[in-house]
Amino acid sequence: MIQVAVMGHGVVGSGVTEILLKHSEEIKKKVQEEVYIKKILDLRDFPDSPIADRFTKNFDDIINDDEIKIVVEVMGGLNPAYEFVKKCLENGKSVVTSNKELVAAKGAELLKIAEDNNLNFLFEASVGGGIPIIRPLNQCLAANEVLEIDGILNGTTNFILAKMIKDSMSFEDALALAQKKGYAERNPAADVEGHDACRKICILASLAFGKHVYPDSVHTEGITNITLTDVEYASAWGGVIKLIGSVKITDGKEEIIVAPMFVSDECQLSSVDGVFNAILVKGDSTGDVVFYGKGAGKLPTASAVVADVMDCVNHKDTRRNIHWEDGDPSNILPFENTKYAMYVLANAEDPEKAFETANSVFGECLKLSRDNAESSELAFTTPVLSFSDFEKAVSEFEETGAKVVSKIRIAVI
Amino acid sequence: MIQVAVMGHGVVGSGVTEILLKHSEEIKKKVQEEVYIKKILDLRDFPDSPIADRFTKNFDDIINDDEIKIVVEVMGGLNPAYEFVKKCLENGKSVVTSNKELVAAKGAELLKIAEDNNLNFLFEASVGGGIPIIRPLNQCLAANEVLEIDGILNGTTNFILAKMIKDSMSFEDALALAQKKGYAERNPAADVEGHDACRKICILASLAFGKHVYPDSVHTEGITNITLTDVEYASAWGGVIKLIGSVKITDGKEEIIVAPMFVSDECQLSSVDGVFNAILVKGDSTGDVVFYGKGAGKLPTASAVVADVMDCVNHKDTRRNIHWEDGDPSNILPFENTKYAMYVLANAEDPEKAFETANSVFGECLKLSRDNAESSELAFTTPVLSFSDFEKAVSEFEETGAKVVSKIRIAVI
Repeated sequence: MIQVAVMGHGVVGSGVTEILLKHSEEIKKKVQEEVYIKKILDLRDFPDSPIADRFTKNFDDIINDDEIKIVVEVMGGLNPAYEFVKKCLENGKSVVTSNKELVAAKGAELLKIAEDNNLNFLFEASVGGGIPIIRPLNQCLAANEVLEIDGILNGTTNFILAKMIKDSMSFEDALALAQKKGYAERNPAADVEGHDACRKICILASLAFGKHVYPDSVHTEGITNITLTDVEYASAWGGVIKLIGSVKITDGKEEIIVAPMFVSDECQLSSVDGVFNAILVKGDSTGDVVFYGKGAGKLPTASAVVADVMDCVNHKDTRRNIHWEDGDPSNILPFENTKYAMYVLANAEDPEKAFETANSVFGECLKLSRDNAESSELAFTTPVLSFSDFEKAVSEFEETGAKVVSKIRIAVI
Repeated sequence: MIQVAVMGHGVVGSGVTEILLKHSEEIKKKVQEEVYIKKILDLRDFPDSPIADRFTKNFDDIINDDEIKIVVEVMGGLNPAYEFVKKCLENGKSVVTSNKELVAAKGAELLKIAEDNNLNFLFEASVGGGIPIIRPLNQCLAANEVLEIDGILNGTTNFILAKMIKDSMSFEDALALAQKKGYAERNPAADVEGHDACRKICILASLAFGKHVYPDSVHTEGITNITLTDVEYASAWGGVIKLIGSVKITDGKEEIIVAPMFVSDECQLSSVDGVFNAILVKGDSTGDVVFYGKGAGKLPTASAVVADVMDCVNHKDTRRNIHWEDGDPSNILPFENTKYAMYVLANAEDPEKAFETANSVFGECLKLSRDNAESSELAFTTPVLSFSDFEKAVSEFEETGAKVVSKIRIAVI
């Protein structure tokens, strides 16, 4: 029998407990040992739980219990999760977490402590919820050089964008619907501002390229400024708008970004609907591999946590070979140097003339059209430009009186 | 240093050697040990290989070499691969294979021998080429009950069908193109008759449900009878024709089949193009998870083999927990009891009248139409029927003088 503790009994935590209890026989069969929940840490009371007597409000009950060998951290947030996890690892307990904020902020440090103590620190559920991605990236693609990762990493924003695309709902209405359905928090900033997707691409980048990428070194844009007009022009261009987290190696540095982008209908990521996530990994040997599924939700995420727990049981005396070093912003390609073709929406008194200007300041542009466009409206795509060259061109363009109201990157996936 | 032997220097085998040599430093870093190719078994000479001196034509040079701890089998075919692999496992050597024919025919037996000898028998590359599917299915989804697996498991047939769908090429022309491009063998039977897909769904079913499913107990249909008319009607219905391997639990038994099916445009599998594969796994906790990528080809497949080799190195003294028991046809739902809605294409003197008959013998049918249909042509979809009820209805329908020329299942994915 192996004894585990679960810290946090919220959405994911209660799912973990539910799966461990409901599937206990199958799990025992698969890992050849009973997995027993000894303690659950939560400040709230759960008198109706079938294992109500195992709840505690005191972390000491876990850290001081030498029989507990695996601790599941599903509290979320950076504090006190960080302190608790660190103590667990320093005290001989392997840790499994779904906490992307923790892994994105402290991954390198916690992996190092786990390594020094010959323990496991696993976090499959921190990216893509129930989609297996961390382990395949680490293991199955081990014989590959990873060239690029592009992902739809946040289900809430993908739901909102899909509603805008398919049902012509405004951003505000789609967000309200997402909140009503429980997909979005009452304070939706972490999702709609791109921070959640940013944490996830940081974890994937750290794992793929071996150096910790911290969220604050990643240029991150959300979807709050996307309008139905942009959505219509994306369709006219031959694609859809998706919030993309992307990392690749450019000039020996990591080019990493989170931003809404035009994604061609030809790309596998374009058809990812609703709250689903998808992660595309380009390997030098495998070519494109895509992992698709529900990126959040109680049971998908909890099942990924439990699978990690089972992996810990299978690797009691050995370690999963998962590792990255600390990193710093010097590994990251300066944002100004990142290069994209851009979609631009502008207002101008004379759109025809403004398009002529556009062609001279951005290079050869492609005009886009839509039904019922305003007479002052001008939409076009530019050639591939570095961000600094693009911004310079925008200034020049606006000097002629045109006003840029939207600018969105065109993904090359 | 760990010494390996590679049996077979064909497409995949030469790719394995190439990756092991090219990425030797990264591999060493990842598994903390040098992986050294000691012998390559092939009956042909390769004087230009950088390691020409390590080739042998004699299996004894491998089996009798106690320093060789891992053997890669990439010869393909059942014999002598089966005999060689068995001997390796009996003689203390872990085995990695990409040979789906071998795993589908002898998986349970070889896994048992590996288990008895505390060795690994890994076969990630046998399904989906470079797509990680065996390991995620076994590990990441460990905390799930797998409910169903549906896959596009053969790239050659998917290429042919895609050419028929997108370029209105006939089956014969598309096959000829696939052969020209090297996607199809000169004798394409294993692909176009569905046998290759069948082996792969057998391996996935065995792994997911724990009992070996042998290919000869699986109803298998190929794509040789699919016409452009069928493709047009699939489009009119709202989907595409794909060769699907499917397994799920029905009435406590495994319902398993390989057949061309109508797949709705709404389904993730519908957009899988060209030589790509995709495997959709439904879990009770995860919901739908899809794995997508190149299902064949030298480097994708070889990279999956090398990842397995690295996993063997990481698990020198322990075993990957991968297992299924032997099985027999009594686990399989009799084919007559499988239930599908069907697409039917018929010729009749009076199509209107024939459609009335269809409604009375099949139940309420839905008529399909296409441009430039022959005047004698009638196409419709039936309600969900067991295969035996459907065949009975076809007989009744044909008694009125109509002639059924095509019948294709409608996938429920």
